[in-house]
Amino acid sequence: MGLLITGGRIITATDDERADIYCQGEAITRIEAGIDSSTLPPGTEVIDATDKYVFPGFIDPHVHVHLPFMGTNAKDDWTTASQAALAGGTTTLIEMICPGPTDEPRAAFEEWYAQAQDKAACDFTFHMSAVRFDELAQSQLRDIAIDCGVPSFKVFLAYKGALDLPDEHLFGLLTMAKKLGVIVTAHCENAELIDAMQKRLLSEGKTGPEWHEPSRPPAVEAEGVHHLATFAELTGAHIYTVHTSCMDAVDAALAARARGVNVWIEAVAPHLVLDKSYAEQPDFEGAKYVMSPPLRKKWHQRYLWNHIRSRAISTIGTDHAPFDFAAQKTMGRDAFTKIPNGIPSVSERIDLLHTFGVLTGKIDLHTLVDACSTQAARIFGLYPRKGTIRVGADADLVIYDPNHTRKLSVKDSLSAVDYNAYEGWEVTGRSEVVTVRGVIQAREGAFVGEQSRGQLLKREPTHF
Amino acid sequence: MGLLITGGRIITATDDERADIYCQGEAITRIEAGIDSSTLPPGTEVIDATDKYVFPGFIDPHVHVHLPFMGTNAKDDWTTASQAALAGGTTTLIEMICPGPTDEPRAAFEEWYAQAQDKAACDFTFHMSAVRFDELAQSQLRDIAIDCGVPSFKVFLAYKGALDLPDEHLFGLLTMAKKLGVIVTAHCENAELIDAMQKRLLSEGKTGPEWHEPSRPPAVEAEGVHHLATFAELTGAHIYTVHTSCMDAVDAALAARARGVNVWIEAVAPHLVLDKSYAEQPDFEGAKYVMSPPLRKKWHQRYLWNHIRSRAISTIGTDHAPFDFAAQKTMGRDAFTKIPNGIPSVSERIDLLHTFGVLTGKIDLHTLVDACSTQAARIFGLYPRKGTIRVGADADLVIYDPNHTRKLSVKDSLSAVDYNAYEGWEVTGRSEVVTVRGVIQAREGAFVGEQSRGQLLKREPTHF
Amino acid sequence: MGLLITGGRIITATDDERADIYCQGEAITRIEAGIDSSTLPPGTEVIDATDKYVFPGFIDPHVHVHLPFMGTNAKDDWTTASQAALAGGTTTLIEMICPGPTDEPRAAFEEWYAQAQDKAACDFTFHMSAVRFDELAQSQLRDIAIDCGVPSFKVFLAYKGALDLPDEHLFGLLTMAKKLGVIVTAHCENAELIDAMQKRLLSEGKTGPEWHEPSRPPAVEAEGVHHLATFAELTGAHIYTVHTSCMDAVDAALAARARGVNVWIEAVAPHLVLDKSYAEQPDFEGAKYVMSPPLRKKWHQRYLWNHIRSRAISTIGTDHAPFDFAAQKTMGRDAFTKIPNGIPSVSERIDLLHTFGVLTGKIDLHTLVDACSTQAARIFGLYPRKGTIRVGADADLVIYDPNHTRKLSVKDSLSAVDYNAYEGWEVTGRSEVVTVRGVIQAREGAFVGEQSRGQLLKREPTHF
Amino acid sequence: MGLLITGGRIITATDDERADIYCQGEAITRIEAGIDSSTLPPGTEVIDATDKYVFPGFIDPHVHVHLPFMGTNAKDDWTTASQAALAGGTTTLIEMICPGPTDEPRAAFEEWYAQAQDKAACDFTFHMSAVRFDELAQSQLRDIAIDCGVPSFKVFLAYKGALDLPDEHLFGLLTMAKKLGVIVTAHCENAELIDAMQKRLLSEGKTGPEWHEPSRPPAVEAEGVHHLATFAELTGAHIYTVHTSCMDAVDAALAARARGVNVWIEAVAPHLVLDKSYAEQPDFEGAKYVMSPPLRKKWHQRYLWNHIRSRAISTIGTDHAPFDFAAQKTMGRDAFTKIPNGIPSVSERIDLLHTFGVLTGKIDLHTLVDACSTQAARIFGLYPRKGTIRVGADADLVIYDPNHTRKLSVKDSLSAVDYNAYEGWEVTGRSEVVTVRGVIQAREGAFVGEQSRGQLLKREPTHF
Repeated sequence: MGLLITGGRIITATDDERADIYCQGEAITRIEAGIDSSTLPPGTEVIDATDKYVFPGFIDPHVHVHLPFMGTNAKDDWTTASQAALAGGTTTLIEMICPGPTDEPRAAFEEWYAQAQDKAACDFTFHMSAVRFDELAQSQLRDIAIDCGVPSFKVFLAYKGALDLPDEHLFGLLTMAKKLGVIVTAHCENAELIDAMQKRLLSEGKTGPEWHEPSRPPAVEAEGVHHLATFAELTGAHIYTVHTSCMDAVDAALAARARGVNVWIEAVAPHLVLDKSYAEQPDFEGAKYVMSPPLRKKWHQRYLWNHIRSRAISTIGTDHAPFDFAAQKTMGRDAFTKIPNGIPSVSERIDLLHTFGVLTGKIDLHTLVDACSTQAARIFGLYPRKGTIRVGADADLVIYDPNHTRKLSVKDSLSAVDYNAYEGWEVTGRSEVVTVRGVIQAREGAFVGEQSRGQLLKREPTHF
Repeated sequence: MGLLITGGRIITATDDERADIYCQGEAITRIEAGIDSSTLPPGTEVIDATDKYVFPGFIDPHVHVHLPFMGTNAKDDWTTASQAALAGGTTTLIEMICPGPTDEPRAAFEEWYAQAQDKAACDFTFHMSAVRFDELAQSQLRDIAIDCGVPSFKVFLAYKGALDLPDEHLFGLLTMAKKLGVIVTAHCENAELIDAMQKRLLSEGKTGPEWHEPSRPPAVEAEGVHHLATFAELTGAHIYTVHTSCMDAVDAALAARARGVNVWIEAVAPHLVLDKSYAEQPDFEGAKYVMSPPLRKKWHQRYLWNHIRSRAISTIGTDHAPFDFAAQKTMGRDAFTKIPNGIPSVSERIDLLHTFGVLTGKIDLHTLVDACSTQAARIFGLYPRKGTIRVGADADLVIYDPNHTRKLSVKDSLSAVDYNAYEGWEVTGRSEVVTVRGVIQAREGAFVGEQSRGQLLKREPTHF
Repeated sequence: MGLLITGGRIITATDDERADIYCQGEAITRIEAGIDSSTLPPGTEVIDATDKYVFPGFIDPHVHVHLPFMGTNAKDDWTTASQAALAGGTTTLIEMICPGPTDEPRAAFEEWYAQAQDKAACDFTFHMSAVRFDELAQSQLRDIAIDCGVPSFKVFLAYKGALDLPDEHLFGLLTMAKKLGVIVTAHCENAELIDAMQKRLLSEGKTGPEWHEPSRPPAVEAEGVHHLATFAELTGAHIYTVHTSCMDAVDAALAARARGVNVWIEAVAPHLVLDKSYAEQPDFEGAKYVMSPPLRKKWHQRYLWNHIRSRAISTIGTDHAPFDFAAQKTMGRDAFTKIPNGIPSVSERIDLLHTFGVLTGKIDLHTLVDACSTQAARIFGLYPRKGTIRVGADADLVIYDPNHTRKLSVKDSLSAVDYNAYEGWEVTGRSEVVTVRGVIQAREGAFVGEQSRGQLLKREPTHF
Repeated sequence: MGLLITGGRIITATDDERADIYCQGEAITRIEAGIDSSTLPPGTEVIDATDKYVFPGFIDPHVHVHLPFMGTNAKDDWTTASQAALAGGTTTLIEMICPGPTDEPRAAFEEWYAQAQDKAACDFTFHMSAVRFDELAQSQLRDIAIDCGVPSFKVFLAYKGALDLPDEHLFGLLTMAKKLGVIVTAHCENAELIDAMQKRLLSEGKTGPEWHEPSRPPAVEAEGVHHLATFAELTGAHIYTVHTSCMDAVDAALAARARGVNVWIEAVAPHLVLDKSYAEQPDFEGAKYVMSPPLRKKWHQRYLWNHIRSRAISTIGTDHAPFDFAAQKTMGRDAFTKIPNGIPSVSERIDLLHTFGVLTGKIDLHTLVDACSTQAARIFGLYPRKGTIRVGADADLVIYDPNHTRKLSVKDSLSAVDYNAYEGWEVTGRSEVVTVRGVIQAREGAFVGEQSRGQLLKREPTHF
């Protein structure tokens, strides 16, 4: 059954034109001005997008859904997370597979895949974390990248003793990645410094969430980026710094790029609109704003926006990591180190960036699309199936009303988490209709589609 | 009469796909796999592009054709220059209008336009140099930008007493440009330092072309960029540094960008493949390699390529400035300061960059298209009419054979200049067929089209 | 008549030792532990410095006393200014000679010298401003530097149309300075940008003192430093950036130094302890805090202190420029551009730096002495006569009580100005006894000496 | 028995004066113009230093004498090394104590001390390497620093599995150092990268000494400095980067300093006068020039000199590590990784720096003294006993003939090593007379003194 979207302003990373879009089956099959609906098969649904934008479905390159972490499990499952994503205009999620340090990669891949496969209402793929690198792991990681179509690894320089990969293995992983054409995404914070700073702060009685940032200041993140970039320089591997939060870290990445390192930079929505003062709120309210890297001083925001505008920063994700406040964040009442990390934003990302980025003039609409969809598709091998609007591409579309105004609230959220970090914020702009491969999955913030529509997107390695 | 291009690999800044292209009238009207030529109007010309690339027509954002300079006139006219451009795959030229210090802008615009309008075999537009900024000039510059559709200015920080604009006027021009949405392109070398260094070197008997670079070292260019960028920072104007030649200057621009300045960076082909040692050749041979900014030490090339790959540098032009060796360059036999500046490259640009950029792995094909076509179109308001391949765009197309090998030589050149700076260089890749708005203008390096096909491309201001 | 100082802790830029100091005539003649006063000539005055520091007399490398500026005259004369300096431990002042744009240098030198010669209670020398550079001026500047013993020039990149030197002359001046071995001190703010920003702000009705800083933000100063440093790079001249106020400007100087430019950096006391918010006080109170470069955001202070500690910044002066609040600062009630610039600090410098630098651990005592005395002496050719404590040096000594606490107030000030920018601030540390060439000129903040004791210090050029 | 040095030009880090020096016992007791030798005790030796410089005895802050390394022992012992040092004007050596990874610190200290105590002809102290940091080691390191008077540690980020300290221990060591006031000197090259690069190069058959540098390029050293500096930033410890060899590493240190890190930078003589091409000489000759960090591209030299002139680099040592060519360097014939590292320079340092630094105008004499004597004394707690010429200081003096010219040769060397890296180089300047605490130990390049005159210099911690 076909779908015709008429009269919208089609906005891609590069173009802005008024035309109608006709989707047949799962793909876009025609883009033309004035498609005569009477010539279309009977039953074609027609949506009037006049005065609306039509965006390619947004891609979140960095989310956690299934997440055993710090002794608990993230609250969302793929049902709630994918619904929340769709409500916010995001049609593809790239989830981090985060095995424990002794888990076999293959088993982890299967565990994560199993969580998603029947519940995902949107399409998905993964970044495969390499937390061990013995021979077995090497072999399985290779298989996952090539045979399973997941050619992007994740490494942690943070989380000492849990996820951090020793330098010897980091070099080996990057060498292998280069050979396979696999990009290595990385959480760049020096694990040892954080561990030592946490111990010092706790020993001084500094236990509240306001001490989370001082336990991992910008210097710790810059060290991580500098370290990784040097390893990339010598191995030739392509790298991608996730949730880059501050000037210091961005500068380290850009300096590496100037030396010829192939490095891409990801920002995440929370760092662009929230700052350190949120985590300093009294009565443990700050715990809602604990993520890693932490929220920074406010002036870093402007620096990140400048580099998004210039496209030196390629992507904007969320690092959605959904832990409840009541029963989970509160595990850290006595010690900020035990607060599960995360500021759930998968549903709010686009509207926040539209409101505080586009409408304030920091970026234009093309940059919004580029950062939130196209670049993720290009970097992670989904393009041109995803990430743009063109004939032949998947019919993942967002009809967006740029004038709709509402207040964000946990009560309207489809995520399972019991709080909304942006509670009461007024945003302008809303995804009115959201399709996944031609099927309408969300309307006006509500999920209206097929729960198991999502597919694993098999990808090819491109980072040789 | 239509034109059908079949079987080619269509390469744009973002995409790579096999499809047929049908052009009717001046525009691209269909892009589809397997267009059945029997369904097309009779007389449609069919070109088989199997095993070829199809690129959007290249744009050279920085050329000189009509150029009274240093007491002589550049050798090319629009007949020869546009033929040379087309032979090399370039279908749009942006020429610098360079009036003398007392000329009225309006008269200059008309003079330059008159030169092009009946002779240009390719499309064209201008950057309007602001060398005076009194009230009359302000008014005429505004008219040229808005009414004549030339919303890009050029300023010179170099050429003391001839072209350089005093700081007070620079501020005024940038302020006006910001208000009008006009981008300001700039030659960033400090005029005073060059003048003083030239005098010093000549007084020391250092008169040969090898002293040209020492008279304007990287520090002089970096000063220019830093200066301009500071003015842009305070006025909000959008700027574009032309022919940026060295690490020092690029760094100054990137530092400004990090502070939020809207600055675009242009490299030119000669700086990417030639170095300072060429200008140091004996017997005045070096004079062929005198341009400004000068050729630099070889290591700067790698730095420029790194930033082209990362797209921090947006465009690659030529600064084509065609002076004969025999009768013009030799005007500077006694003093390098009298050597007319320029290394003609309008015809060679694409093949040089394909050979030494793409085939060596420094950049990919998309970056070639982006830097040599798409970005120029976007930055200067020609997009999407120019700069990409899509339905509705002008049918400016280049069918490119990536495997053709030949030696460059003055004897094969369509430019009027009596030497070729790349004489004897072997290049791989050639523009086999080149169209301008649907008409084949060049084939296999020869001009085969209509001499006066070229049009002035009226543009709208976009840099608010 | 001799002077014996016993039991003090002698602190120089490099050393810290307990010894007695005996001064005979104008010089220090003995430094030994346990000088037996009974062996000294009768009439020797003995001062017990137990529990006190003995510092070399401090040098302020940047003051204005005689200052026709913005249509008025600074309030101090040499009587009051030198008394105020001495009360605060400063025994040598280097004053800026600031002629008008058409004045002859020689006449200006004589005018300034005449003001000082009978009234200066402390020693003095000058920096000779070059505000014109025609042949006559060149010849006179050379004479002043060499014959009159004033081998340090001052240039202004700021103050458009009044003091700023055009680039051509800047190059000439630096070339001449290099040849003569003369250092060029410079006020580095781009005159044109300031002029344009002032006009813009005033035209928008932004007339209060809080708009002074926005009219000359850090970018304007960084531009000045970058500009000057580039000129120094090509001429080889030695330069000295006065009152460097912000990270951006310091960074520009340090980058030049890394390239091999011989550049010294001066900070001034107000920028180290005051910030922009002072100039934003209501009821025109902010006018007391208007100087150029302006007070900056507070975080710049830490950056300056870091570089003072590392000695990347060589000197700390004051830029003492004494204008009354009541009748002079108020000239700018309708326009901040008419507020005479200056934050008088010549008397307060050492106690402020001791309190907020040494006692807070930002710098040590040696760095205090180095920055406030020794480096000025070394850079400006006064060493070893001034700037340290050693046999043979001038007996300019400060016996300093590090524990004395008081509140600063205009009512205790010996300067003629009608306000104190630090009114009510509590400081720790006071110059108890201050000598100039063996004569006690100040005690406990009071002037007790010979009014005309001061001499012009003839210097030799050293910056070849 | 006294010693009188007459008529010399006394050059310290800050001063330059003609005076006589009288030494009685071990110390300097008088510095005056025209000391009447007839008033001195009989037997006073008088040395005429007319037309000579008198320098404070030079200090080499970084040598190896006793050095079990890579399966062999360095060739010098304290007899030869101290004689060689003295012949070259160096009167104090600071040796690295380099225990194996499981050795107890205390035992190592005693082993090293035993080697020196009866054989050292010059004074000495140590940097105590921390290669383990368990509780026992912590306690012993504390004792060595405080009780034994060796308050400077050394850490290796290089030499994987042998000397490198894991990050957790690095943080602990720096924390302890900060508390104790101990400075931490560090070899900053990332051990893991070197190990991986070595394996890769060897596996590619790249076994010659010319591959030593590519196995540890500037990026590897910059990574080390950045890493250490970040740890210092968070612990507050004072650090000192030894043998900093390249722009990248210096820049990392200076960037840290700008952020407030207390970091000192050491260069060593070989990096200032030799470059990478020496290690690329055929027939294994390059092995003589293998040290770590390796010799770099020549342009780095100028960068290091610029920063020595500006005193951003504090000290110049040698990293003297004396291995024979014949039987030791040749251990690495099959693999550059087995070439014992070191370019013996303890005897040549001063004359090389005088010839290629002072006489070429890169630095002045004061900077030579500062970098080669005074700063080492200040940073490592030897000042003012060592490092300057003043009454009360140890009578460690060098009478230096700035005009003496000779060729360096292994045959004239007092070091036990069988080659001289500077064989045949012509140098200007020689230490004519060298004293240690008043006793003449060397004359005109020959050792003429008491073999066991040297003492361990007990030091106090100063880096709080």
